[in-house]
Amino acid sequence: MLILALDVLERDVALDVARKCGEYVDFIKVNYPLVLSAGIDVVSELSEIRPVIADFKIADIPYTASLIADIAFRHGVRAVIAHGFAGSDMLRAVRDVADRHGGEVYAVTELSSQGGREFMTRHTLEIVDVAKEVGCDGLIAPATRPERIAEIKKRAENLRVICPGVGAQGGRLEDVLKAGADGIIVGRTIYQSEDPARTAREIRERIDGLMK
Amino acid sequence: MLILALDVLERDVALDVARKCGEYVDFIKVNYPLVLSAGIDVVSELSEIRPVIADFKIADIPYTASLIADIAFRHGVRAVIAHGFAGSDMLRAVRDVADRHGGEVYAVTELSSQGGREFMTRHTLEIVDVAKEVGCDGLIAPATRPERIAEIKKRAENLRVICPGVGAQGGRLEDVLKAGADGIIVGRTIYQSEDPARTAREIRERIDGLMK
Repeated sequence: MLILALDVLERDVALDVARKCGEYVDFIKVNYPLVLSAGIDVVSELSEIRPVIADFKIADIPYTASLIADIAFRHGVRAVIAHGFAGSDMLRAVRDVADRHGGEVYAVTELSSQGGREFMTRHTLEIVDVAKEVGCDGLIAPATRPERIAEIKKRAENLRVICPGVGAQGGRLEDVLKAGADGIIVGRTIYQSEDPARTAREIRERIDGLMK
Repeated sequence: MLILALDVLERDVALDVARKCGEYVDFIKVNYPLVLSAGIDVVSELSEIRPVIADFKIADIPYTASLIADIAFRHGVRAVIAHGFAGSDMLRAVRDVADRHGGEVYAVTELSSQGGREFMTRHTLEIVDVAKEVGCDGLIAPATRPERIAEIKKRAENLRVICPGVGAQGGRLEDVLKAGADGIIVGRTIYQSEDPARTAREIRERIDGLMK
């Protein structure tokens, strides 16, 4: 799977890149900077191009988390991303909302940033267990640490593992797939490219070649 | 301090409650459900009534966290809330953005929900240390666990400690203030009251009486 992290701030740029790259990517991942700048309706518009993952990294009390997830699903997203470290009650609340909408839930195990090593890495496998118990569809694991992906994937069993941090953050596509990832999240490398469609197609071909 | 958690979904309701209660509260805290439903401009409008804390519970890589904080401050908020769990690099990135805007940063130690006990409580005091080191202005601590507030406040030294979970979630105002909290966050008890202004004034008077 190739997931486009559409981390731009303007609605028109987002829709333009999405339209150009749509046929080469499986999902479009949006985060708060775009949604806050352009308004939540951009999510509905993008959902008409490709299925959207709302990367809201939800980490709140269950009541608030449910409201956030519900708004995302009502705007057409296929999946939401929530933090495992916030606890099983929250993941379960988000799972319940997703079920009502026929949507999916991905749980963050550890952030790909340096700070992800401070607290989160100490609980990664426990978070995998909680995500499995709650019935999440997949996990977010750091492309910057392929050795961790292998460990997470082994524990995750049939949950999909998708990985941000390829490209600008330093993760290598080949290492990430070899470690067992089911999907790669690529942002700046594609949307900052002179020809986003060609770059997306090339990455897609590399993924397809490696996953054969 | 009394902080109004304005967890409603409609712009008009938010502005109405804020205008009615404004004189009795020190801050208005907004979360994503309102901002996603009503659009980010509601934050600017509320900021004209009372200083706003953007309770976005930021928990992302530093780059994305900076963008989210920057959008909040550009819409006039006084402070943002970020998760200590996400690591010191992210808190530092948010601190830098806040400094550029003359704003404040509060770090979540542990969520007031049951799930806050699963992973977060195991690192609460480490998170307090990180928040101090980074130069955060304050901490979020659970009103549902007064014994934790006392411990957090002791370790926090001169950082302000503010506590959600009073009222609907079960925390008692007296217990929270006795434990050393500098501020109380109250939501449903005020905005679901038949007379939000009167309820806010009564809570204000109780706080002022107890903190004398």
